[in-house]
Amino acid sequence: MNNSIIRFILGHVLRIEGLLLFLPAIVSGIYHEHEGFYFVSTAAICLILGLAMTRKPPESQVFYLKEGCIATALSWILLSFFGCLPFYLSGEIPSLTDALFETVSGFTTTGASILDNVEGLSYCALFWRSFTHWIGGMGVLVFLLAIIPLSGGSHINLMRAESPGPSVGKLVPKIRYTARILYIIYFAMTLLEIILLLLGNMPLFDALTTSFGTAGTGGFGIKNDSFMSYSPYLQWVVTIFMILFGVNFNAYYLMLFGKLKNALAMEEVRAYFLIILAAAGIIFFNILQTCSGVFDALTQSAFQVGSIITTTGFSSVDFNLWPQASKSVLVLLMFIGACAGSTGGGIKVSRFILLVKTIAKELNSYIHPKSIKKIKMEGKPVEHEVVRSTNVYFITFMILFSASVLAISFEGKDLITNFTAVAATINNIGPGLELAGPTQNFGHFSVFSKYILIFDMLAGRLELFPLLILFHPAAWKDLLTRKGAKRTSRK
Amino acid sequence: MNNSIIRFILGHVLRIEGLLLFLPAIVSGIYHEHEGFYFVSTAAICLILGLAMTRKPPESQVFYLKEGCIATALSWILLSFFGCLPFYLSGEIPSLTDALFETVSGFTTTGASILDNVEGLSYCALFWRSFTHWIGGMGVLVFLLAIIPLSGGSHINLMRAESPGPSVGKLVPKIRYTARILYIIYFAMTLLEIILLLLGNMPLFDALTTSFGTAGTGGFGIKNDSFMSYSPYLQWVVTIFMILFGVNFNAYYLMLFGKLKNALAMEEVRAYFLIILAAAGIIFFNILQTCSGVFDALTQSAFQVGSIITTTGFSSVDFNLWPQASKSVLVLLMFIGACAGSTGGGIKVSRFILLVKTIAKELNSYIHPKSIKKIKMEGKPVEHEVVRSTNVYFITFMILFSASVLAISFEGKDLITNFTAVAATINNIGPGLELAGPTQNFGHFSVFSKYILIFDMLAGRLELFPLLILFHPAAWKDLLTRKGAKRTSRK
Repeated sequence: MNNSIIRFILGHVLRIEGLLLFLPAIVSGIYHEHEGFYFVSTAAICLILGLAMTRKPPESQVFYLKEGCIATALSWILLSFFGCLPFYLSGEIPSLTDALFETVSGFTTTGASILDNVEGLSYCALFWRSFTHWIGGMGVLVFLLAIIPLSGGSHINLMRAESPGPSVGKLVPKIRYTARILYIIYFAMTLLEIILLLLGNMPLFDALTTSFGTAGTGGFGIKNDSFMSYSPYLQWVVTIFMILFGVNFNAYYLMLFGKLKNALAMEEVRAYFLIILAAAGIIFFNILQTCSGVFDALTQSAFQVGSIITTTGFSSVDFNLWPQASKSVLVLLMFIGACAGSTGGGIKVSRFILLVKTIAKELNSYIHPKSIKKIKMEGKPVEHEVVRSTNVYFITFMILFSASVLAISFEGKDLITNFTAVAATINNIGPGLELAGPTQNFGHFSVFSKYILIFDMLAGRLELFPLLILFHPAAWKDLLTRKGAKRTSRK
Repeated sequence: MNNSIIRFILGHVLRIEGLLLFLPAIVSGIYHEHEGFYFVSTAAICLILGLAMTRKPPESQVFYLKEGCIATALSWILLSFFGCLPFYLSGEIPSLTDALFETVSGFTTTGASILDNVEGLSYCALFWRSFTHWIGGMGVLVFLLAIIPLSGGSHINLMRAESPGPSVGKLVPKIRYTARILYIIYFAMTLLEIILLLLGNMPLFDALTTSFGTAGTGGFGIKNDSFMSYSPYLQWVVTIFMILFGVNFNAYYLMLFGKLKNALAMEEVRAYFLIILAAAGIIFFNILQTCSGVFDALTQSAFQVGSIITTTGFSSVDFNLWPQASKSVLVLLMFIGACAGSTGGGIKVSRFILLVKTIAKELNSYIHPKSIKKIKMEGKPVEHEVVRSTNVYFITFMILFSASVLAISFEGKDLITNFTAVAATINNIGPGLELAGPTQNFGHFSVFSKYILIFDMLAGRLELFPLLILFHPAAWKDLLTRKGAKRTSRK
């Protein structure tokens, strides 16, 4: 295995984090907060470590999917660890586990918080918290690819390990340009949301943090009641942007280059909007009589459906008090998730389309045993390997999910809390139901459970295998022995 | 499609049911109950219809998997419909939906009841209720294969459609002898259980009905408190037999022919016992302090683990009151289920072994992308088709499960009730948690929900596809048009 390239990538990740940590430090300067000191200190540590690790260039630029996965998983762990230090060192989150939970929740765009009083945090901490969503949404390695010339090697492996969805295509032949285009779209849409929120008289700080949370489909709020006290105009702006950030970014790319028709023909995008309409419709009729009117019911159902299917997790209402059918719809949406190639989490709409088509094909094979029709997406046959890995993904997801629910059930909380707490973290949503509901927080879980949920958040964001691979003995054998490093560098 | 053979098989199924209905009639004679009249009447209807349908031999003996599946699904629907008539006509269960629910629950070996006072039923009704478990456990078409010389054609298709588990092998070259051997083992083990229960001073009637419920892994009790008031000896006998009936019957076949070593080497059987030990161990420690002693905790944990993993569903205790971790373990066991080739339901242990191996293989492919190692069971490589169809089975199961939970959630019951009610029916177990818990019954569900759960019970027992195929338009096109019948009979 090429250990030196992993070291090199991790070093660059730390350097980027070091630079990004200056942003909350600037915020602390504006608001005259002493907590800025801890951001500057952490930034300095990151930069020194990062520079040390990137001083020597890697022995070889070649790396495969294995290195890509390990580099990605370790990057995210490192990012989260150093990202949590300002919270911990400043004493704003006195427990290291809690600080780590909050930061992992940020970077993985989950938005599950251990804080019961968000409004007690300093502005710079609130800013950093929401900003981690924005960083995590698109992915830090994709960012790395966009700015650093890692020539040679198959860098698609890095992108594939970090990007959500069953298949990562290159939009343009050079992966570096693909990454740049994605970041430009991301940046432009975030900016547009900030402007629209400011037009609705939202304070600048709120507009920034809200937009970061929306763009990354994260969901950290800066108010204790999340989004409940904002005006309907602001709620609708956020609803629309949450839904837009859940769309496959390839669609925007196609639109940008005038291929609007191709963008609208994308099966996943159409299914995504159809699911949103159906779910919002069911919930609308289900909650109508508990709401103050048709408009209120429309606003609430659209906001919550948009928030949950895109795995953002803002709440405009305590949906834990909704009727059962609405809650069941939301729980289902938690698992479906957003489109592949978006910033959203969950299993992804395109995977579900493939799964349903797989079932239809199986049924068909009972009727016409000799038929050899292939599964198609957008009229094109889907490669067997994509179908297979989608099936395996779903299975792995379900088994990991069940094991996690079992693991956290030992502290004795009720089944719905456990079930939805895991659903809300592994799908990178944030709020679940009952004790993990929108008006609650995750602070009451035991340290053991918190680490299980931290693992689930990372597993969900990295689409399971890049993280699970760290538990494969072969990964560590190569990583920890010089022999492994030598053996493969000689190749 | 060969419609005439389907008609012929359905006729034979009705004839068998007609004969079997005389058994409860005999019971009514012994206890001087007037309800026996309705059993005799229904028997007469079945026999007349059955004789009419089998008068003309089928135009062709050839039938494929499609016909096998359709014949199986329709057989089970027919069986359940005529089987419920005595309950309905006698007025013991005044609603037709409820009577159908109870009978489907019986034949599918689920054991979920709509009755709140089981002890109020007549003896003949109680007998028939438990006897449907015994019939459904091994499968009525397997029985048909064992006694009726349907020469020619590939009858493995009938057996494959009805038998649980990912792959049905022929134990001996002639499928008819395989079916006979299975029924002999089944009969002998039931007899042994009856004798052991009688030795524990259980009344004969109780011993018969309990053994039917155990053998079919059904779980209908004849007492309102299921198994709570029986002695520990009787509870242990039932525990052991539940677990034995959950073992792959191929193991008994191997033992019978002196291949004990091969039987003990069966990977599925070993995993099955391992899961039982682990689950019972966890629950034992979890409930120890709420029990009246070590022996009590041991009895209860072993009984409930045996009852749930084999999908029998007898209850020796109200496990809805157990601590959360124990309940979570039980819910997991509901999905795992018993061994393939047993009378138990659930997803089956062998499928889970295959799923876990699929995940391990996927992880390995990240480390060694060029490895082409095949998945192995008992040292032999598993065919790609088996792995694929296991994956598809799991996916279909999960999606059907989720859709059912959503469908019944509209009547407003809590999520745990809905979740476990579907889990308890689709896995053919019986009791779930909360309002579907062991001291509750399914009578309070709406008619709509009851039909959803009836569908789930049948889908679970027939392993999804033979039932789902009835919803494929092509199945009905062939079935309802003479053209379809002619087209294929000419082949």
